[in-house]
Amino acid sequence: MTHAHALRGHDLTRAQLATTWDALRTRSPLVQCLTNRVATTLSANVLLAAGASPAMVDTPREARAFAGVASAVLVNLGTPTEESMQGIAEAVTGARESGTPWVLDPIGAGGLPWRSGIATGLLAKRPTIVRGNASEVIGLAGGRGGRGADSIDHPESAVRAACRLVERSGGAVAISGAVDHLVDGRRLALLGHGHPWLTQVTGAGCALGALMAACVACTEDPLLAAATATAAYTVAAERAAELSRGPGSLMPALLDELAQLTPESLAAAVQL
Amino acid sequence: MTHAHALRGHDLTRAQLATTWDALRTRSPLVQCLTNRVATTLSANVLLAAGASPAMVDTPREARAFAGVASAVLVNLGTPTEESMQGIAEAVTGARESGTPWVLDPIGAGGLPWRSGIATGLLAKRPTIVRGNASEVIGLAGGRGGRGADSIDHPESAVRAACRLVERSGGAVAISGAVDHLVDGRRLALLGHGHPWLTQVTGAGCALGALMAACVACTEDPLLAAATATAAYTVAAERAAELSRGPGSLMPALLDELAQLTPESLAAAVQL
Amino acid sequence: MTHAHALRGHDLTRAQLATTWDALRTRSPLVQCLTNRVATTLSANVLLAAGASPAMVDTPREARAFAGVASAVLVNLGTPTEESMQGIAEAVTGARESGTPWVLDPIGAGGLPWRSGIATGLLAKRPTIVRGNASEVIGLAGGRGGRGADSIDHPESAVRAACRLVERSGGAVAISGAVDHLVDGRRLALLGHGHPWLTQVTGAGCALGALMAACVACTEDPLLAAATATAAYTVAAERAAELSRGPGSLMPALLDELAQLTPESLAAAVQL
Repeated sequence: MTHAHALRGHDLTRAQLATTWDALRTRSPLVQCLTNRVATTLSANVLLAAGASPAMVDTPREARAFAGVASAVLVNLGTPTEESMQGIAEAVTGARESGTPWVLDPIGAGGLPWRSGIATGLLAKRPTIVRGNASEVIGLAGGRGGRGADSIDHPESAVRAACRLVERSGGAVAISGAVDHLVDGRRLALLGHGHPWLTQVTGAGCALGALMAACVACTEDPLLAAATATAAYTVAAERAAELSRGPGSLMPALLDELAQLTPESLAAAVQL
Repeated sequence: MTHAHALRGHDLTRAQLATTWDALRTRSPLVQCLTNRVATTLSANVLLAAGASPAMVDTPREARAFAGVASAVLVNLGTPTEESMQGIAEAVTGARESGTPWVLDPIGAGGLPWRSGIATGLLAKRPTIVRGNASEVIGLAGGRGGRGADSIDHPESAVRAACRLVERSGGAVAISGAVDHLVDGRRLALLGHGHPWLTQVTGAGCALGALMAACVACTEDPLLAAATATAAYTVAAERAAELSRGPGSLMPALLDELAQLTPESLAAAVQL
Repeated sequence: MTHAHALRGHDLTRAQLATTWDALRTRSPLVQCLTNRVATTLSANVLLAAGASPAMVDTPREARAFAGVASAVLVNLGTPTEESMQGIAEAVTGARESGTPWVLDPIGAGGLPWRSGIATGLLAKRPTIVRGNASEVIGLAGGRGGRGADSIDHPESAVRAACRLVERSGGAVAISGAVDHLVDGRRLALLGHGHPWLTQVTGAGCALGALMAACVACTEDPLLAAATATAAYTVAAERAAELSRGPGSLMPALLDELAQLTPESLAAAVQL
């Protein structure tokens, strides 16, 4: 059984992150995205800028078979419809049948009862990575959630809950915040890059979840995948903020920076 | 009974607009958006830039309960589906039960029969603000509508129709155009800010409706809410246009300007 | 019967493209778009920047009647739902009843069986233009398709398949790629404008399909319509790339350039 107090510092290195980022850019993993209406376009653009190949195949008629072909699957619970939830169920079935890694982003878990039930059911299907804000992680672990999609908790206060999720999923959990907290059953990694304007861009967290799916197709280590995606995205955001005037100009600039980010540049910039 | 000729000049002051804008930035109202597929992302980004908190909770399974928690609700009839229309009905029920103010944006009313029927039914539920272009306002009042989502009428020609809507809704009506015309049962306010490029950005009007919902959570006076949102948005658009090359660069710049717009700066710039 | 080897060089002139582009800007055709969730906003913005009037009327309740009013209809098969596919069927029925020209963008045809069946059925309804990447064109003609929405073939290898589509549709087929290949029953036109960053912008091809629909409302010659839209879009992309830092800043700049593109400027820049 995992306890937060039993976590130790991670053993991830800059070289590992650079290798994973290089693999993403070289292999161009096919990432099947079942995500919300708000973040669909941005998520696809983040994947394309990073060098991955997004495929928004989410109809129940195609989702299961496609998950067997995809390199990874992203499941995001924002703006659910009856049909999109069926599509998600099919995709997760397909991913499990074929061993395709998948990421769960339980938008609104804890704060919205219907959706929380769905998120809990998906957790039992053992997502390779769970990504959310602190309130969603706490809510998914059975605590009270946030305000809609907003977090009212700090990432450090969600580490214990994240460890409970890890017990059930067997994978990694990424808690977003000013300092991103990433855990698996043994390790805790902290990443403090990014910029406050990122919190004023809708779907910015959802798009990071898509990037995690791309990375989880490129390494066997879910924590490394989550850390690589987080580092690349938030380092790119820092650079983009220097070239921007506010949250509106940030996002185009972030995509530009992500497209230009080399493995060497990532390794040089990231502080683990 | 209200007649267009009985309207008098408004009594709104720059100080009131500044106070309402300050309240939005301080309180960060939670705005539940049930809006169309085209404008979802932009609407959320406008709310975030302004300092509000968007929540795109639109499934019939969650919409009613969430409207009891939200600070305000936006209902926009663009790109309707059977399920989204059910979600809207639930949200409006929830808003009425809990006294949550709500904004109706009757996209396509008058020009599209099915949707016009829905819009008329929603008008009877007494939206706090109705926002639309001139053809939609005329169409919702029973006249012939526009061409799809396009207006073929001028705002001044829709003031009489707006007054008929006010009789039924009891709130304010905002008619968008080169000069925005805002009315309630007693007053008419005109605002001439903005830029022609704004008409070449899809969802720009819909996003203004979302901002009106954020403002209506911050004042008891619907006309003041509509005026504050319109003034902030169009003043930001004017400033953004000076920094832009066309409609594509306008929108990121508008979000930047909105994020930087202080109550003092708004009061200094607005011409009432 | 048409054979690829029987195609001869086109007879399109720069003056014809300029005239068609001028007609679009003058008439502002009303383009009904039934398109995917990823590309909706960009497609509408491309149409607005070009001077057309987008109308995202896709519910089965309104799609048929609206197709009788619209200047042209765009049908795109990305992110299908049960309801959106019904809407598409209704819109195509309405377009055929009223003689409204329409464009088919068979996203994922060949690679995804369910969707391929729908695309084949729509081809039999004789779309005025079919637009797709090489794998989609090959897939729709009965060959094996690509990887999700990605092409794994080159446009020149799809010309034979495009000719088979022309036999069935009677219209033009546009194959996108580094060099765009456009065919009708007699002619082959090549256009080599554009920029690699365009392939890193999600929905960029879908938005070009929307622009083709706007152009097909302005000329009786489908090949000319496809060529005008392709030329305007890719010339604007070239100019935008010079002002951009990567795929993120490309798209706002492309919209700016499209809004500024005069018929004279298009004629001067295009290489046929």
